[in-house]
Amino acid sequence: MILEFFGGRLGATAGAGEHASGEYGEHMRLSDMDADQRAALLAEQEREHQELCGRGLSLNLTRGKPSSEQLDLSNALLELPGSVDLPAGPDVRNYGGLDGLREIREIFGELFMIDPDLLVASDNASLSLMHDCVTYASLHGIAGQQPWSNQQVKFVCPVPGYDRHFAITEHLGIEMIPIPLTDDGVNVEELAALLADEQVKGMWVVPMYGNPSGTVWSREVVEKILALPAAPDFRIFWDNAYGLHHLTDEPAEMLPILDMAAAAGNPDRVFAFASTSKITFAGAGVSFFGSSKTNLDWYRGHTQFRTIGPDKINHWRHAAFFGDAEGVRAHMRKHREQLAPKFALVDEVLSERLGGYGVAEWTKPRGGYFVALRVPNGTASRVVALAKEAGIALTPAGAAHPLRHDPDDAVIRIAPSFPPMDELRPAMEGVATCVLLAAAEQL
Amino acid sequence: MILEFFGGRLGATAGAGEHASGEYGEHMRLSDMDADQRAALLAEQEREHQELCGRGLSLNLTRGKPSSEQLDLSNALLELPGSVDLPAGPDVRNYGGLDGLREIREIFGELFMIDPDLLVASDNASLSLMHDCVTYASLHGIAGQQPWSNQQVKFVCPVPGYDRHFAITEHLGIEMIPIPLTDDGVNVEELAALLADEQVKGMWVVPMYGNPSGTVWSREVVEKILALPAAPDFRIFWDNAYGLHHLTDEPAEMLPILDMAAAAGNPDRVFAFASTSKITFAGAGVSFFGSSKTNLDWYRGHTQFRTIGPDKINHWRHAAFFGDAEGVRAHMRKHREQLAPKFALVDEVLSERLGGYGVAEWTKPRGGYFVALRVPNGTASRVVALAKEAGIALTPAGAAHPLRHDPDDAVIRIAPSFPPMDELRPAMEGVATCVLLAAAEQL
Repeated sequence: MILEFFGGRLGATAGAGEHASGEYGEHMRLSDMDADQRAALLAEQEREHQELCGRGLSLNLTRGKPSSEQLDLSNALLELPGSVDLPAGPDVRNYGGLDGLREIREIFGELFMIDPDLLVASDNASLSLMHDCVTYASLHGIAGQQPWSNQQVKFVCPVPGYDRHFAITEHLGIEMIPIPLTDDGVNVEELAALLADEQVKGMWVVPMYGNPSGTVWSREVVEKILALPAAPDFRIFWDNAYGLHHLTDEPAEMLPILDMAAAAGNPDRVFAFASTSKITFAGAGVSFFGSSKTNLDWYRGHTQFRTIGPDKINHWRHAAFFGDAEGVRAHMRKHREQLAPKFALVDEVLSERLGGYGVAEWTKPRGGYFVALRVPNGTASRVVALAKEAGIALTPAGAAHPLRHDPDDAVIRIAPSFPPMDELRPAMEGVATCVLLAAAEQL
Repeated sequence: MILEFFGGRLGATAGAGEHASGEYGEHMRLSDMDADQRAALLAEQEREHQELCGRGLSLNLTRGKPSSEQLDLSNALLELPGSVDLPAGPDVRNYGGLDGLREIREIFGELFMIDPDLLVASDNASLSLMHDCVTYASLHGIAGQQPWSNQQVKFVCPVPGYDRHFAITEHLGIEMIPIPLTDDGVNVEELAALLADEQVKGMWVVPMYGNPSGTVWSREVVEKILALPAAPDFRIFWDNAYGLHHLTDEPAEMLPILDMAAAAGNPDRVFAFASTSKITFAGAGVSFFGSSKTNLDWYRGHTQFRTIGPDKINHWRHAAFFGDAEGVRAHMRKHREQLAPKFALVDEVLSERLGGYGVAEWTKPRGGYFVALRVPNGTASRVVALAKEAGIALTPAGAAHPLRHDPDDAVIRIAPSFPPMDELRPAMEGVATCVLLAAAEQL
């Protein structure tokens, strides 16, 4: 049995935390067992799985969204902005203001290290901003180049990655080229070879606490990538969805991405995205788009046909709620208080149940919303199916790969944020049973 | 001097109100004056204009948006939904619910006579929904037909019409074919001839209180149009932006447009749009998209890549604010109390200053946000320029026509909602001076 983790390095995906476990523990390695021991293990796990199925569970580990208790942290928003004086300047209740309210752009500009003049605040979904950028480039082109819809266009897709990114590019007929994530981003030489192809127009990146790998892209790797030769209309879709979502006292470094792109001589290379979806209300937050003035003018030049302006009242509401950047940081510490124990529980259960068998590795992310669980090649789908039989919903195997195809059938995305602790434990125990059973079956 | 009003019928554009004035009044018809009388009039208007320019005015009649006082009517929204119980069903604060909150769809479904199951509630701009429908059809096609971006596509554009409609189609490279508005829509035979062209894929319609004509489309005309032969992917973009915005005790009839389309045997022909932009906050309202199930499935099939769902908190906030459909009607009566005097003032000043000269006609709309002022052919641009010299901003002549080209250079859009009454009177008096001066100059 060969465990080939992300780029063969899941155990060392340091971006994901101090370490990932699975090699060490009280259990005997499956590969060291003799035939009788294996048969006994298989029989035992079949019994456990049968018992699991009999419990009538209905548990869900698919949903990378805040729990009700996390949402409660922002309930003051439901009464804001209240009957206070309107902000200075044009009436926020009326039409206008394509860039969004200055006050909220200043707060999040500080946090994301982006000049507020280069940061647009929009409606509730940064996904929409990404979608629209791809759509505008498809219909109209960017940087004076041909519309993408007139040609074969390719995007580089670090894997495992975010399914909704890959869905946008798939839907628009863009070919996706997977590249494995490393400890600190991707292999720069490998990427350089891909970017030499002029048809490569984009790359999806979740720079901090990646979904689902937890990967943090290092300053060094990013600096190199920003300087690589590429097509003039090549853009890095820098989705910093979890940039403020730390789980430890050692937050990853926030990179001043637009400054770095300018310093690398490619100021227009980056489309930066973020939102408050996992900060305030997932369905009613504020999204952000940061880029060079040239790119923003391009964006405005198309978006002005779509809208007269975003919901500035919601910007005002959020600015009133947070006050300043420190208000956001304090708020995120409350999220961490709720989330960190859930991530600890996932690690605890997996370590207890699987440690030593050598049949799984998983990330211990320093932030974000996901744990990536790597199981023996060819068993991820089976684990998901076994879990389903037991009433435990897991994200479909392959979801973290372009076209939903994980060539190793080995990566499972665990989303521990939504279920309460008393559901998370039995769910993870069930998952551990399924992982072990699938591995034993395979032998 | 020939006054050719919209399709030669401005005076009778009954959709726009009982009548439009300009032919009758105390003044002598310009065309009946002898040379001396005309010279005297010209000299007098030049003096008046010069005096006007000396007053240092800064007035604006361009903005078709609610006044601050109108926005105040909705200020309770700033504290809603408050600390009340969350609505039943999935947590409105979280992700999800592509169709929007049921409660708000029921209220506005009743008002717009659309089954809530066929009505989607979205974010703050129905313009975005229109844009996205055109974009999705451009990139992906609709009704199993070729993407519009692969072919020459044409839209029928009733004129005068809404500049932002025409801007969307222009931006996407769609050819616009003007057709004059009549009293009750458009000439059906003329439209039938246009729709015989398979390249015609859409038509912009503002069915009630059109921008800027005030036109109301009659049930009879709409029934005929719904039954006309047309391309399978021909869609009527039915923008009922002012459908609840009555200015008189005799509201125009709300047409159950989807039922009518189904009855005509073309259930998929209509994309219906509306919003609360001019009901609550122009920048922070709720938009609506109603269509057949087939069309909505098509829309959802594309929009799901753009967003996980709209801002349901804002839906909830609006539902709490209105309570029910009658709550909306009561709210609109308050708007009318503020708006009707402004429209009366526009008519009063124009009648006093221009009545009898035979140099202008204007609409007396029964609803909506605009007055269309028709001046002698070839003078609209001159009127706008003269007004600008005097510090009165008017919408550029031609704005109500595709490609900003009014072949008659005769239509001026007046937006009386935003300025307070004490600014509206001098602004309209100044406009009257400019109209008369431009007409006298032309002779």
